[in-house]
Amino acid sequence: MAIVIIRQDGKIDLWKGALKDRNPEVAVYSYLEEHPKETITMAVIWKHPQGSLSHYPNLKCIASAGAGVDYIFEDTTVPKDVPITRIVDPYLASDMSEHVLAVILAELKNFNIYKLQQVDSHWSPIEYRRIKDVKVGIMGLGELGSLSATDLMKFGFSVQGWSRSKKTIKGVRTFSGSEEFNSFLESTQILVCLLPLTPETEGILNSELFSKLPKGCYIINVARGGHLVNEDLLKALDNGHLSGACLDVYHQEPLPSDHPFWNHPKIFMTPHYASVSDTNSVVPQILENYERLRHGENLLNKVNRNKGY
Amino acid sequence: MAIVIIRQDGKIDLWKGALKDRNPEVAVYSYLEEHPKETITMAVIWKHPQGSLSHYPNLKCIASAGAGVDYIFEDTTVPKDVPITRIVDPYLASDMSEHVLAVILAELKNFNIYKLQQVDSHWSPIEYRRIKDVKVGIMGLGELGSLSATDLMKFGFSVQGWSRSKKTIKGVRTFSGSEEFNSFLESTQILVCLLPLTPETEGILNSELFSKLPKGCYIINVARGGHLVNEDLLKALDNGHLSGACLDVYHQEPLPSDHPFWNHPKIFMTPHYASVSDTNSVVPQILENYERLRHGENLLNKVNRNKGY
Repeated sequence: MAIVIIRQDGKIDLWKGALKDRNPEVAVYSYLEEHPKETITMAVIWKHPQGSLSHYPNLKCIASAGAGVDYIFEDTTVPKDVPITRIVDPYLASDMSEHVLAVILAELKNFNIYKLQQVDSHWSPIEYRRIKDVKVGIMGLGELGSLSATDLMKFGFSVQGWSRSKKTIKGVRTFSGSEEFNSFLESTQILVCLLPLTPETEGILNSELFSKLPKGCYIINVARGGHLVNEDLLKALDNGHLSGACLDVYHQEPLPSDHPFWNHPKIFMTPHYASVSDTNSVVPQILENYERLRHGENLLNKVNRNKGY
Repeated sequence: MAIVIIRQDGKIDLWKGALKDRNPEVAVYSYLEEHPKETITMAVIWKHPQGSLSHYPNLKCIASAGAGVDYIFEDTTVPKDVPITRIVDPYLASDMSEHVLAVILAELKNFNIYKLQQVDSHWSPIEYRRIKDVKVGIMGLGELGSLSATDLMKFGFSVQGWSRSKKTIKGVRTFSGSEEFNSFLESTQILVCLLPLTPETEGILNSELFSKLPKGCYIINVARGGHLVNEDLLKALDNGHLSGACLDVYHQEPLPSDHPFWNHPKIFMTPHYASVSDTNSVVPQILENYERLRHGENLLNKVNRNKGY
């Protein structure tokens, strides 16, 4: 039994060290070094090169080192019968919730406009909005969406949420399915996308959806770049229907330097860093599953391949 | 009995309308129009021209139309025996609290740096901080400081406060007087200034104070420009002792366009708009005091001239 780490972001040694620190007896390899492929039972991966998972005849678990698993489904060479797990990190959800709160408050207080004014040495106060006057709508009520909804409500916002299947969150008005989608959108002033990326949700942030939102609505996409139709966002910002957008995720990352988002005055960008898996809080989950594999027990945080998350 | 409105920001008609809307029988004049000076018993003012209050022989109350009254004490021609009142607006405190929260979260999540990166089409993620890991120190525990402290604590921050005389706020560690000032500063990671501007507090944000803060401390000044020694801030930012600052108030407003603050990468500026008196919520207080004057009753929110607030 051994673990292979597959990722292309220069963090293999960091992960190897974190796994070894926690359990010095575990055998861990980088996919880039010489390693006995038949001993590998678990692959700990993040945005692996396509095809790289097909070299392991005894693979029993593909462990995504983050909350997202959409990149795994994009690789058609991934073995179909190997269970996939993902990270459910308590900090992932609370970090995301703090990010969403920070973005919403910055928007209420016009910080994006003030920063652009500052760059131009220009002084021009703008009316702000108050927490109590704003209704936030969250699309996607999984681990991240639910906590964000609950936190925003505690902070005094009116919060409503939408998800594919009905969810109940105390104090939050919830909508579900396509039949309730329009009512949810019509009454949302700040829309937060925290959906998983699946074939059903790809491109969901498009002109049709925007047209159902009230004029002046603000969009926050902290899920995946693939949820957003870039051209539709630019159109809705430029014709004044949407007041602005804050994006953390993009179709291509890093975003190419000639992309029109960079210089758009109504867009505030962060570099896919709203919530980042912290190796220290994530490694114990992965090693727990490694032990469960060894003992033939059920894996934690298993992905449902049909749902795609 | 009549009211005169004295201010130079083009909002006299707005205030006149708001007072008349609420009580059509009250006599209200602009100081710029012809008006019977001996009938004036109350002056509702905001940054009045110096000397303009000495024309009213029967003045019984100088009502500042905002929370601050420092500009009144700067005018040595203001009659010494006329009571001064100020605004204690519930929104003034909650708006300030929301502003302070927004600024702190934006700092934890590096939004200022990201906005500057965006202007340069530059992608470079930076580690963020979490609410639970940050200790906020609030200088000044009046109406605004106390609410801000309480709210930040509710949001999960460690909060401590310092004031001239001892204050007790549930859940907040409080320090007072000069003897406890150093201990307060040494353990503060984000310093919020919400002090009144008095001869004792003028220039309090200076090199000596900064040197007592831990390296990397972040400064938020939402009180008055006069609290800050500008050159000392620039020095402490440039030598790396302070990590950054968010300013809403300045010695001169609007800030002159050639001021070094505008282009400083570690400063985030807002145009004195953290919390603005809303006429609708403020007018009832002023009219209540006008009634009290008529009946010879004690005025609400009277300023202590010795303390200066």
